[in-house]
Amino acid sequence: MTRRAEVIAIGSELLGPSRVDSNGSFLARRLGAQGIALAFRTIVGDDPADLRAAVSTALGRADVVIATGGLGPTVDDLTREAVSEALGLPLIEDAALVRGLEERFARHGLSMPPANRRQAMVPAGASVIPNRHGTAPGLLIRTDAGRLLALLPGVPVEMERMVEETLLGAIGASEEVFATRVFKVSGLTESETDRRLQPAHAAAGGVEWTILAAPGQVEIHLRERVPPGARAAGIERLDAAIAAALGDHLFGRDDQTLEGVVAAALAGRGESVAAAESVTGGGVARLLTSIPGASRWFLGGVVAYTDAAKRALLGVDAAMLATHGAVSEPVARAMAEGIRTRLGATWGVATTGYAGPEGGGPDLPPGTVHVAVAGPHLAEHRTWRVPGPRGVVQERSVRSAIDLLRRSLMRAAA
Amino acid sequence: MTRRAEVIAIGSELLGPSRVDSNGSFLARRLGAQGIALAFRTIVGDDPADLRAAVSTALGRADVVIATGGLGPTVDDLTREAVSEALGLPLIEDAALVRGLEERFARHGLSMPPANRRQAMVPAGASVIPNRHGTAPGLLIRTDAGRLLALLPGVPVEMERMVEETLLGAIGASEEVFATRVFKVSGLTESETDRRLQPAHAAAGGVEWTILAAPGQVEIHLRERVPPGARAAGIERLDAAIAAALGDHLFGRDDQTLEGVVAAALAGRGESVAAAESVTGGGVARLLTSIPGASRWFLGGVVAYTDAAKRALLGVDAAMLATHGAVSEPVARAMAEGIRTRLGATWGVATTGYAGPEGGGPDLPPGTVHVAVAGPHLAEHRTWRVPGPRGVVQERSVRSAIDLLRRSLMRAAA
Repeated sequence: MTRRAEVIAIGSELLGPSRVDSNGSFLARRLGAQGIALAFRTIVGDDPADLRAAVSTALGRADVVIATGGLGPTVDDLTREAVSEALGLPLIEDAALVRGLEERFARHGLSMPPANRRQAMVPAGASVIPNRHGTAPGLLIRTDAGRLLALLPGVPVEMERMVEETLLGAIGASEEVFATRVFKVSGLTESETDRRLQPAHAAAGGVEWTILAAPGQVEIHLRERVPPGARAAGIERLDAAIAAALGDHLFGRDDQTLEGVVAAALAGRGESVAAAESVTGGGVARLLTSIPGASRWFLGGVVAYTDAAKRALLGVDAAMLATHGAVSEPVARAMAEGIRTRLGATWGVATTGYAGPEGGGPDLPPGTVHVAVAGPHLAEHRTWRVPGPRGVVQERSVRSAIDLLRRSLMRAAA
Repeated sequence: MTRRAEVIAIGSELLGPSRVDSNGSFLARRLGAQGIALAFRTIVGDDPADLRAAVSTALGRADVVIATGGLGPTVDDLTREAVSEALGLPLIEDAALVRGLEERFARHGLSMPPANRRQAMVPAGASVIPNRHGTAPGLLIRTDAGRLLALLPGVPVEMERMVEETLLGAIGASEEVFATRVFKVSGLTESETDRRLQPAHAAAGGVEWTILAAPGQVEIHLRERVPPGARAAGIERLDAAIAAALGDHLFGRDDQTLEGVVAAALAGRGESVAAAESVTGGGVARLLTSIPGASRWFLGGVVAYTDAAKRALLGVDAAMLATHGAVSEPVARAMAEGIRTRLGATWGVATTGYAGPEGGGPDLPPGTVHVAVAGPHLAEHRTWRVPGPRGVVQERSVRSAIDLLRRSLMRAAA
């Protein structure tokens, strides 16, 4: 029987329009690897009655309950009190925690503010999880009904450390864990991906299967229950079928990223790239330079947003711009070759197009984009028209340009 | 008495590590403006028992319950059945809905797949909310206990339309609504912002007050209960005190963005800008070109990631690079002036620094950044050292550069 978990994120600010609870993703992944299925996530504000209700409800329907947040020193931090009341466990001051807090402040030359003494209050019978990164200790409670309740800080680095070092051990081994694998796809829409994978999906058997789409990228998430330490035989079996159906649209698995795959290929071959961008406005350079050590293979780029900039910074011929227009295959190719030559890079990559809301007339609606790659013995070009909000057109164009570079690198290596 | 809402997001994929429920933010904002306080958010998978439990729990603790998702035609779409069982309301096929679905498919030259007939099943007594954008109708149920339960599709555009056109009307007017105002701050840390605003905060009275921080930006969110249509007197009163305490660190309110404020200033004055970037790798250009119509005032930019690129694309003096190093005030200033001159822009903005994880030796740790602005009668420079993950250093540097441009524009106008 698979054990089930509920995660409760505590804090009125998490119910507002501007904040996203970022802890849930980490907990979903780590719990799954430990064989615990996440069944519910709840977000609740700093209200004592609501907090008590959320904790009681969760303990009634999940084997493991993890509450994050509300352990700070202020009057808004009510998790300790709510749990104490919900479970009928009196709060007792923990002398060792008081000393630890005092020492922590003393190390910074401070005396402990009176408010922080609240952080040493512990429901009777709870065990303390030390916090190396902050003042809020974590708390672990086994209820009479055999449920496990963990109270953890909302600060991700503090919470994650406590999960890795203490909580997963307290949860203990499961008869089954969830093995996962993610397949990452570029250059196909969600429905094209789905169609190509129909035969593999039909043979998925006990492997759960989810397709997620983002601009310019599709992911297939597989999940399989297996005994701890066992091979994920179902996923292994599907892997080859998925890879064959996707061909060179499959650019990576699990934590691999499009920009990371390109970076590794360039670094491994001692080659370099430079970017000439119009419609993507610097997004290609920005994504490539998000990789640590990018200066070893990314030489630089140009954002040539006007015809004048395309001439001045990239040497694009004025007559070509006049004849074909800035959003055209010849100009995209000339931009790629122009930046490659100017910076002496192995490869040049270029984008030009209309991100919208304005286009370039009836034949060039918003969403019209050309990308090009120039290399030592190779030049590639791709064009498409996909309308959409400005940000989506730009993001899709960034990924398409880097994907064309990836394919060019593969072809040059073959 | 303020009415309270719970939002239930339905779908097993929302419990996985990769997906974020994006509907909650919209609902929090719209409900608040209608005077409904969002008290709980719950995420639950496609499990019949869990779904029933989530709906029953929500109806026990909230006046308005909005469930999104699970209304599609597949066997995973269980919201109708779960609500029918939880409330003891039999499902009845709605003849008008069947006809509407058949006509919808017929318009596309298709006959309705048998599975879609499930989407015409309605719990007895529920009213139907038409869906103009998809096949899943929304459903609205008033329970015997006087609670309002709305079942809406998970697709944002479909859900949002139903909320605006039907749900808010069904919720009706409240005696009080939530008025909100957001203040946006650059160039101050969260704790510096907090310190400056202590006197205003102490006088906040009935106005709720939250500070949120992101790299290079701090936001203060105010919320006040007021009668519908009334002025938010408390927020108005605090506005001047907050503005005075923040000075030119306050760059905007509500939906205003740093890049939008700069864009409006440049467009209004008929001026232009160009960017020369090293450490930000194209991020300054990318953020500025996210604004529609950017081509009217953004001329272009250069990502000069190597010394050679700084010389070739920006004309930075080789001797200056050798003497001061690429991460230095003189080089930042030369880059800003170089791009301004080369592209004939009114303003040039430049960044150079070490994003990490590597730095430039003991005196130049990762997180060392210089930004500079060059203008017609003005040159500005700013430097700092704030260690952090590579992405945070880059993001903070992007915002700091655009903020220095904003201040330069203000000073030039003064």
